[in-house]
Amino acid sequence: MHALVTRLHPLCRSRTGDGVRRTLEIIGERIPLEIHEVPTGTRVLDWVVPREWNIRDAYIKDPAGRRVVDFHASPLHVVGYSLPVSAVMRLEELRPHLHTLPDKPELVPYRTDYEGETWGFCLSQKTLDGLDEGPYEVLIDSTLADGHLTYGEHVIPGSGHDEVLISLHTCHPALANETLAGIAVAVELAERLAETRPRHTYRFLFAPATIGAITWLARNREGVGRVEHGLVLACAGDPGPFRYKRSRRGNAAIDRVAAHVLSTREHTVIDFVPFGYDERQFCSPGFDLPIGLLTRTPNEEFPEYHTSADDPGFVTAHAMADTLAVMEEIVQVIEGDRAYVNLQPYGEPRLGPRGLYKSPVTHTDHRQYQMAILWVLNLSDGEHSLLDIAERSGIPFAVIRAAAAALEEAALLEERA
Amino acid sequence: MHALVTRLHPLCRSRTGDGVRRTLEIIGERIPLEIHEVPTGTRVLDWVVPREWNIRDAYIKDPAGRRVVDFHASPLHVVGYSLPVSAVMRLEELRPHLHTLPDKPELVPYRTDYEGETWGFCLSQKTLDGLDEGPYEVLIDSTLADGHLTYGEHVIPGSGHDEVLISLHTCHPALANETLAGIAVAVELAERLAETRPRHTYRFLFAPATIGAITWLARNREGVGRVEHGLVLACAGDPGPFRYKRSRRGNAAIDRVAAHVLSTREHTVIDFVPFGYDERQFCSPGFDLPIGLLTRTPNEEFPEYHTSADDPGFVTAHAMADTLAVMEEIVQVIEGDRAYVNLQPYGEPRLGPRGLYKSPVTHTDHRQYQMAILWVLNLSDGEHSLLDIAERSGIPFAVIRAAAAALEEAALLEERA
Amino acid sequence: MHALVTRLHPLCRSRTGDGVRRTLEIIGERIPLEIHEVPTGTRVLDWVVPREWNIRDAYIKDPAGRRVVDFHASPLHVVGYSLPVSAVMRLEELRPHLHTLPDKPELVPYRTDYEGETWGFCLSQKTLDGLDEGPYEVLIDSTLADGHLTYGEHVIPGSGHDEVLISLHTCHPALANETLAGIAVAVELAERLAETRPRHTYRFLFAPATIGAITWLARNREGVGRVEHGLVLACAGDPGPFRYKRSRRGNAAIDRVAAHVLSTREHTVIDFVPFGYDERQFCSPGFDLPIGLLTRTPNEEFPEYHTSADDPGFVTAHAMADTLAVMEEIVQVIEGDRAYVNLQPYGEPRLGPRGLYKSPVTHTDHRQYQMAILWVLNLSDGEHSLLDIAERSGIPFAVIRAAAAALEEAALLEERA
Repeated sequence: MHALVTRLHPLCRSRTGDGVRRTLEIIGERIPLEIHEVPTGTRVLDWVVPREWNIRDAYIKDPAGRRVVDFHASPLHVVGYSLPVSAVMRLEELRPHLHTLPDKPELVPYRTDYEGETWGFCLSQKTLDGLDEGPYEVLIDSTLADGHLTYGEHVIPGSGHDEVLISLHTCHPALANETLAGIAVAVELAERLAETRPRHTYRFLFAPATIGAITWLARNREGVGRVEHGLVLACAGDPGPFRYKRSRRGNAAIDRVAAHVLSTREHTVIDFVPFGYDERQFCSPGFDLPIGLLTRTPNEEFPEYHTSADDPGFVTAHAMADTLAVMEEIVQVIEGDRAYVNLQPYGEPRLGPRGLYKSPVTHTDHRQYQMAILWVLNLSDGEHSLLDIAERSGIPFAVIRAAAAALEEAALLEERA
Repeated sequence: MHALVTRLHPLCRSRTGDGVRRTLEIIGERIPLEIHEVPTGTRVLDWVVPREWNIRDAYIKDPAGRRVVDFHASPLHVVGYSLPVSAVMRLEELRPHLHTLPDKPELVPYRTDYEGETWGFCLSQKTLDGLDEGPYEVLIDSTLADGHLTYGEHVIPGSGHDEVLISLHTCHPALANETLAGIAVAVELAERLAETRPRHTYRFLFAPATIGAITWLARNREGVGRVEHGLVLACAGDPGPFRYKRSRRGNAAIDRVAAHVLSTREHTVIDFVPFGYDERQFCSPGFDLPIGLLTRTPNEEFPEYHTSADDPGFVTAHAMADTLAVMEEIVQVIEGDRAYVNLQPYGEPRLGPRGLYKSPVTHTDHRQYQMAILWVLNLSDGEHSLLDIAERSGIPFAVIRAAAAALEEAALLEERA
Repeated sequence: MHALVTRLHPLCRSRTGDGVRRTLEIIGERIPLEIHEVPTGTRVLDWVVPREWNIRDAYIKDPAGRRVVDFHASPLHVVGYSLPVSAVMRLEELRPHLHTLPDKPELVPYRTDYEGETWGFCLSQKTLDGLDEGPYEVLIDSTLADGHLTYGEHVIPGSGHDEVLISLHTCHPALANETLAGIAVAVELAERLAETRPRHTYRFLFAPATIGAITWLARNREGVGRVEHGLVLACAGDPGPFRYKRSRRGNAAIDRVAAHVLSTREHTVIDFVPFGYDERQFCSPGFDLPIGLLTRTPNEEFPEYHTSADDPGFVTAHAMADTLAVMEEIVQVIEGDRAYVNLQPYGEPRLGPRGLYKSPVTHTDHRQYQMAILWVLNLSDGEHSLLDIAERSGIPFAVIRAAAAALEEAALLEERA
């Protein structure tokens, strides 16, 4: 996963353009993607697909001809959606177009300006402080023209009707934790899921934030009712604890699943708020989809956020593996949750003769499993699902699931009709 | 407000009599009052309007002719509803009729005895300790005779049917915080409300505690269903934090409104208990009105309570202004709360082109307002009122209200039919 | 009660056999018991009544003929349901049949093995350490043969249809706190209840754990619907605080009653878990009876648990009297709870003329009672029972009940039809 992050990192992504296309191409080498190109000017809900932005080169050259700011060193150096410029100007003229982080003088900020119809450069305060009056040769070789908005989908078909949507944003340039770690985890998860025969259809959506989600929603307005569960995944690779933000519904199954899976790890759970990533769109009141947001340290809460320090050195293989494990456990609960009926509900059935109970009774290793057996028997009245039982008992879902399987095998349990 | 407290302070109020009438007269100089006089003997619910008590003079004169206890110095010196007496007696005989506070030797207690058919004086322990054996000339020039119970109402008519009842007790003599501060706040609030065109009718009731509320309820039994919200206001001028006591219903709109308005101030909220002020009567099970009690430091919890120390020096102009501000905010929520429907509920609508979003996006001053915009859009599904949204978002109601107004202006929001 | 514990302590109880019969005989000297004998092989729910186990003698004799382990010293010395044995063997051979508590070297453990078809002895680690290689004469004079399972019931008929089930387990040998203290408390409670005319029928069940409860449930399957409230009582005599474990329903009346009664004592309340005593069977999903578990320090949480240290010296007369008091209060709430309607619900009724209010008003002793009067009046709208009122007010049920009685006497209250 870390190699994928590193490979994707230098690309200049924005909400449109070839950087997004190249990103989807690289993802497509691992998992097949259906690529959608939506023309500029298309009405999507209350919005319109914008013009496509592409950039080939950009720099600020000092009088000696040295590139003191160079787009090829990092795409962060250019403000996203900058108009083309080719001029010679003194520092004084140039200064209104320069963005720095004065309190983090080593770092280059990330800036974009979709509405401003202007241009600009981002650089470190330290670089800025080293500049004399110039004059400087300033070039941005960009185009902002009719074109397309590009997004990709990877679908793993399930045996049933319901869908699980896993949504990743693709619009940020070189930001490893915020954008790329989640993409890498999703790719790995999709590969693993492909080896199974899931009940749910799993749809992975790789799209630019906001306008991408809005475009997808506009084009799938009829089908979104099939989404039973969903997650937006971002900030997936830093070493901080998890945060899960509930869907707007607040008590959707995904909200309970995520909370249960995270309960054995350091984490926080917060209620829905209408700002953040694309859960804003999925949870707008007209759609109100059961989709939450999973992050490690959330955006704006790590100091590297939206700076050049959010680089591949900031994300760790261990953290991404941990995020993947959480995602896999979430999938296991989604796939494995169902309600059973205890076929011997009057008193406890005998466990020993059915091989469900070690005898003489010394539950050292098996104590939790034995409790799981008793919990499943006690609560399997058709009203409680395995997740209900896991929540109530505090026993991990996987253990509850295993106990249910053993009980079903022993003909003590039957799936609820 | 403080001037009104000071002016009303010396009057000898009780549950009936000219002190109440004079109090209502002075209030009437500021806001027009409809005065009700209910004859002694009138059946009111389970009660009967009592005889009217009036007092002209009262004293204890020492052998040298000096008034060692003098009604004209403070009405607290006579036990409320004392029968007339004119006698000469030694201290020993007099003592059973004297009330002091031994552990607060400088203070004169407040006492009344509506049922006892007796008489008595209140004085400081220090004064009592300075008395020799006498004999003393003892006079209470009072009358307890058929007459009337007096209360006043001030009504600000609203454009709709629903009423807000604000209830003040008028039966206590010189107790500035417990009784008079609330009256002063209510008078000021009524004056300010008169300049608006409220949706609700605002009814200010100035009546003696218990029997006054019971009399009003008995005479308005058919109309009380119009009371949508109500507050009993007492102990409104001390510098302590607020306490709101919920209505018997516990989840009435006024309970939520008061809690929300107080949430930005130091305060406590407690559940209904069937003792206190006239919320006891309003919240009796037959009426069960949505009326709570707002105080600063509640009765019995400040050491000055029911003593001569509850004087105009104890209440502060600042505290009364603060209480008034809370009352005004409560009125603003009552008046401004309603539910809207987002007319662009699929995805977020574009805010920039509608002037609802500064661009480029740097919400420093406007961040809370911008969040309010997003919250109102997200929760305006016809199920959530603006108060619901304020509670859920933790953003003050006024900001939510302003955001809703801007969105309605931009044709993104429509009041729920 | 302590005398009964001491008398019952030496008997060798197991899930069947003469030790149980003798225990029931002794209980029957105090309260008449209906004894049930259910033959081996009878199908009871998913189970079968097991063979009956009896034992007359057991020992390990050293070469000198001394009984180094002697059943007559304590029934704990033999593993329950041990098969007969008569042999001479060296310590090495014997060792696999010996059970000790190495970390509590002075104590003899309690062990039983219903399924193992084996035999064994329990002894202190200290005794074991003192043994040389032998050889030893080993005898267990037991029989495991078709017979009966024995349980007893004591019923106090009530005036209504509903039943209260109080369940005690009888299957443990010399364990004073875990088993016998609860039996002693129940016997005393039954004697006291017999002097009253309760509304509910009180059924005391003395039966071996698990198989006894299952047998009773199997034979009373039709009648269990009459059980309105129930308690399993165990670990009733140690000096620790109370613990109440809720029924499976979680909000059954007994759950609220127990929590209210315990609220004035040091205690904890926990949710239902499907392991513990016979509440496991009563709360199996097919029955789901409103039965909780009352203990002092729960099983497994006191170090004397399942050892020879759980002897009459560990339980105290004071703790058993306290447990009895709780049980009596629980019965008082069960018997006394009902809903009333305030006949003067508009405003507060006058209390003074009806003798319900001391005058002049100085509630020092009677303050809680006066508050109870106000609470009962305020909440008696037919929707709130006296227990509801006790819970909401935080006033003990007995005080609420007394206030309701006084109000009913004064014709202000009427029981809800």
